Amino acid sequence: MREFIIVGHKAVTSGEFPLNDMPGSAGRIDILARCINSAFFTSFNIRRDTRIILVLLGEPDPPKVLRFEGSELKYLNPDERSAGSLIKKALSIDAKDDDQMSTQGIYVRRASLKDVLSAVDIEDAIYLHENGEDIRTVNLNHERMIFILGDHLGLTKEEEHLIHKTKRASLGPETLHTDHCIILIHNELDRRCLRS
Amino acid sequence: MREFIIVGHKAVTSGEFPLNDMPGSAGRIDILARCINSAFFTSFNIRRDTRIILVLLGEPDPPKVLRFEGSELKYLNPDERSAGSLIKKALSIDAKDDDQMSTQGIYVRRASLKDVLSAVDIEDAIYLHENGEDIRTVNLNHERMIFILGDHLGLTKEEEHLIHKTKRASLGPETLHTDHCIILIHNELDRRCLRS
Repeated sequence: MREFIIVGHKAVTSGEFPLNDMPGSAGRIDILARCINSAFFTSFNIRRDTRIILVLLGEPDPPKVLRFEGSELKYLNPDERSAGSLIKKALSIDAKDDDQMSTQGIYVRRASLKDVLSAVDIEDAIYLHENGEDIRTVNLNHERMIFILGDHLGLTKEEEHLIHKTKRASLGPETLHTDHCIILIHNELDRRCLRS
Repeated sequence: MREFIIVGHKAVTSGEFPLNDMPGSAGRIDILARCINSAFFTSFNIRRDTRIILVLLGEPDPPKVLRFEGSELKYLNPDERSAGSLIKKALSIDAKDDDQMSTQGIYVRRASLKDVLSAVDIEDAIYLHENGEDIRTVNLNHERMIFILGDHLGLTKEEEHLIHKTKRASLGPETLHTDHCIILIHNELDRRCLRS
């Protein structure tokens, strides 16, 4: 199982945003839409062994958590607008403390990053950070591989404190967009699976 | 210099397409828009050492070639719609045999894949193909690194014949979308630059 936890600090928490302006009035929902593409698509398949958890912290109704389950997903196309419209639909639901399904394989609930992390063995997770150990040498042999990533703002000091016991891994000499990081992580995992 | 040559077999060759339907009526222009994002963006910069050449073969006016120069680009944002609107603007120009600039760093001309390849030392280029040598062991030391990639349809037999002397490289065990391939190529080159 591959799991990506991503924090969208400015991402809107209402379904009212316009799909034509995801980078602006939607608080960089475009970043999260691209992360969904990176997490799930290979050329001919959806990665069924993958889950993505998006923590949305923007106005007007934070925090909300969206969960996309590769094993269940049905209505997702690779374009940014497709993922954006699924996010929009999920955010149109009145979020409760428990999961509600908005589209097949997509769930929304009222929760914070702390709530999400409480269901995770933090010491087995990996926080993607430019000062971490090179991913190519990191142990990636857990049954459940959990990766924590920031958005264009990274993670705040408070958020980093929540995962101060988490191993840090880096992906190379350049600092990259979150969706690009996911591609590199998948590729490293794909190569390890082949070897094992 | 890093150069990506990508063939869009169905990509429309008129600027009349709707930005809200790039995967459909625009003949998968969304793929090319994502390739532009992958080619140029790191977290804080545009990759100035990169060029992308898009060969568009769809109706109504093929073939056309768009060239994006990282060293000159100014008006590009990471979202798919931003790259799509720059493509649309370039395709609205009446293409001639010589380059015409549509937006700073973006050029359009009437040309085919064969024309593009005639300006390239084919034996120094790399064709991304699932049956190639692993990119991690391929020699990537040329001053001008040229990568040739297909779209969702791959390359045709005739197109492959044009590059039958070109080395093939693969990126891992999974067959990936073209834009995801570009991320992996950049990462490998970034790592090599660090080492050299």
